[in-house]
Amino acid sequence: MNVANTTNTRYRPARIRTVLVANRGEIAVRVIRAAHELGMRAAVVVSDADRDSLAARMADEAVHIGSSHAAKSYLNPAVILDAARQCNADAVHPGYGFLSENADFAAQVEAAGMIFVGPAPQVIATMGDKARARETAQRADVPTVPGSTGVVQSLDEAREVAARIGYPIMIKAAAGGGGRGIRVAHDAAQLDAELPLAQREAQAAFGDGGVYLERFVKHARHIEVQVLGDGHNVVHLLERECSLQRRRQKILEEAPSPSLTPALRAQLCASATRLAQQVGYRSAGTLEYLFDETRGEFYFIEMNTRIQVEHPVTEAITGIDLVRETLRIADGEPLRFQQSNIVMRGAAIECRINAEDPLQDFRPNPGRVDELIWPTGPGVRIDSLLYPGYVVPPFYDSLLAKLIVHDESRAAALERLARTLRELHIGGLKTTAPLHQALLADDDVRAARYHTNFLETWMDAWRAACAEPKQSNPQEAS
Amino acid sequence: MNVANTTNTRYRPARIRTVLVANRGEIAVRVIRAAHELGMRAAVVVSDADRDSLAARMADEAVHIGSSHAAKSYLNPAVILDAARQCNADAVHPGYGFLSENADFAAQVEAAGMIFVGPAPQVIATMGDKARARETAQRADVPTVPGSTGVVQSLDEAREVAARIGYPIMIKAAAGGGGRGIRVAHDAAQLDAELPLAQREAQAAFGDGGVYLERFVKHARHIEVQVLGDGHNVVHLLERECSLQRRRQKILEEAPSPSLTPALRAQLCASATRLAQQVGYRSAGTLEYLFDETRGEFYFIEMNTRIQVEHPVTEAITGIDLVRETLRIADGEPLRFQQSNIVMRGAAIECRINAEDPLQDFRPNPGRVDELIWPTGPGVRIDSLLYPGYVVPPFYDSLLAKLIVHDESRAAALERLARTLRELHIGGLKTTAPLHQALLADDDVRAARYHTNFLETWMDAWRAACAEPKQSNPQEAS
Repeated sequence: MNVANTTNTRYRPARIRTVLVANRGEIAVRVIRAAHELGMRAAVVVSDADRDSLAARMADEAVHIGSSHAAKSYLNPAVILDAARQCNADAVHPGYGFLSENADFAAQVEAAGMIFVGPAPQVIATMGDKARARETAQRADVPTVPGSTGVVQSLDEAREVAARIGYPIMIKAAAGGGGRGIRVAHDAAQLDAELPLAQREAQAAFGDGGVYLERFVKHARHIEVQVLGDGHNVVHLLERECSLQRRRQKILEEAPSPSLTPALRAQLCASATRLAQQVGYRSAGTLEYLFDETRGEFYFIEMNTRIQVEHPVTEAITGIDLVRETLRIADGEPLRFQQSNIVMRGAAIECRINAEDPLQDFRPNPGRVDELIWPTGPGVRIDSLLYPGYVVPPFYDSLLAKLIVHDESRAAALERLARTLRELHIGGLKTTAPLHQALLADDDVRAARYHTNFLETWMDAWRAACAEPKQSNPQEAS
Repeated sequence: MNVANTTNTRYRPARIRTVLVANRGEIAVRVIRAAHELGMRAAVVVSDADRDSLAARMADEAVHIGSSHAAKSYLNPAVILDAARQCNADAVHPGYGFLSENADFAAQVEAAGMIFVGPAPQVIATMGDKARARETAQRADVPTVPGSTGVVQSLDEAREVAARIGYPIMIKAAAGGGGRGIRVAHDAAQLDAELPLAQREAQAAFGDGGVYLERFVKHARHIEVQVLGDGHNVVHLLERECSLQRRRQKILEEAPSPSLTPALRAQLCASATRLAQQVGYRSAGTLEYLFDETRGEFYFIEMNTRIQVEHPVTEAITGIDLVRETLRIADGEPLRFQQSNIVMRGAAIECRINAEDPLQDFRPNPGRVDELIWPTGPGVRIDSLLYPGYVVPPFYDSLLAKLIVHDESRAAALERLARTLRELHIGGLKTTAPLHQALLADDDVRAARYHTNFLETWMDAWRAACAEPKQSNPQEAS
């Protein structure tokens, strides 16, 4: 986007004087920065373990919410609402994870007379239910993975659907997400055995035993489309490719996808806009797709009705600050872009730097950061919760930092990523940085020849190579 | 620029295997990063004082060149050439300052069979002589400040010229630069007195007593145009405004200029391309102009035939890595852009963070960096020579870091700058950061109502305000 760049008009919040950030870690820091850039006061909730967090230091007010156990603090709607009242918040930004896709919580925020920075509660409810989201997609003429029409009601129905689509087939929990609650059946006998197990597991994990069936796409790519709406109009901000995953957790994301043709990109992104428009989407959201490269077909899988961890790669290639836009929309401003204003520039890659030892089965590795050197210079961005001397608590997810590079092309971005990974130093903790260095040295990764199961197989070879005496230091691999 | 972003083609240097960075400080770090991103080996010269520099740590090889006194090391062509031979350099990048605009040095590099990363020696010589540069501009139909035709040969000639142009008038050393060697005469009597003084001063300072006359533009703005050429073709990369100066040293720079209309921008930038084309310009260069806002006229003043300190603001709004381009051009690659590929996106601002106490007359303040916290998050870039624990030596200029923000508009960039300045922490040294915070709170600065003499007057008021008990902490001013 290119707003008239000589304008001197400072943004003046209309309704949001104070926004409460109902989250922690790097995303809390991210939202506080956006609020401050818009002239809003930012408060943040902090558990016992987070009293000394970077977010607490940067916020105008830190509201203590007790227990380090998330269930009693960050995941407890009543506690968060109390905190919002305590700091006189006009709005609550949920970040990602925790209560960000909890429709009841969003409704409670609104019932308390505050603004929920996100979509309407009923939209969260609709799109948070995978089966309903899929039905909505079909109504919007958005392709979905061939599968059952909603939740399967019986084993007989499941058998019929599977026979029609063909094996292997996936059994997915309607209330699941993030890769949880998924089983694969390779034939009818396995379906018979797995279906009741999947139903019981879904009931136990999510309080809802509903499952549905989908074609299992081998070597699928995970591509997602960023959308932004104001409840009336919707634009897309192009796509991200997130196929490098471990146990369905994304490790490295890039924008644009290196595997789409311009024609497929246009079709994919238009379908996402159509679906978001169909539900009158408000705020930032992401539509996740499977891309079957062999067939050249994409299928909508689910929607995340919140900001994503990997949103910075989209910000880099579009020049649009997504978090600020969610706050402006929540503040009552209409969408500031038409689709023609969204122009792609260059390519961006994000590496998740986690406090995990990739050679010890990603064992979490909390502790004190002795020394901290961020890569700097052109085309590099760090979003992190760290500061020198910070002690990473053991209670939460292990994301320490997101290293994002932006450059004129994917090839250039890969070189920039290599030099920034060499500059990065997080002293005192074992992190996933050596994994990223090794990935970057891999010809398949460089050529973007990967899919969602690529990383796990690749990891086996990497671990074996690292175990050999000559290559005992994984950093040498790059 | 938007190169096809799915390309997987890694840059392969054709002629430059090793580049020697003949500089120090942040620009040495900048060039090393660019070389590494292009797959080139980077060596750097280091004086005694710089053995432990960040550049020395990042380079593939650090070549020791002795004395901490620049005249015996960084400014000594023979020493630098020896270093280049020692590390088998194929090319020498001079950075800015030191030998970067020394035509003889450039010629010696070429005579030694190496590539000088910059324009041809004769172009440096021509454009480095202000009088000849001015004549060249006039031949290219580029407006210059009304003044003498080249060096004035006598007091009589000077009187005639001054009478034609009108007082006040500037007397400038032909071999001067960086604001040195300039006197102002307000009437004929003062001209009579100042001219011989100016000539003697020029002879003493630059070994060349030639001076020329120019109209003194009151409340002038300093605007400069970035060009890039390959010896055959030239493009411009828009302009920068650098009017906030203290003793003619730039303090804060922005791109684009907030004071130009689109029509004037087009004229200004086209004139710069014309002039650079006229001399067959190769590499990155900057044409400096005075902009007379009252008259709506711009005048070419001089050209810097090297990369500038403030180049990152141009990189931000164009998406082009200027330093990498200079290396690619030196490596034999033709210019990769046509003018239509250069598209402006948003606005960028750079603050120079110097090791100087702005409240103690900018007294240099070298010493140890106890703690270092860089601002991070979206739209912020740091180019610096610092690392935690680094001891800033007292021998060189006081630039510690450049803080650059990029955002969708100037108004947004100002808010982003405010939040990043709050995040910045350089423990152990007094810096110019508080000055930037105070500037940012000033209505005139926010509205870009400033000129090249603005800052010195403003400083008086600021110092007085800081001396008052209530505002003794300048950081509170923001």
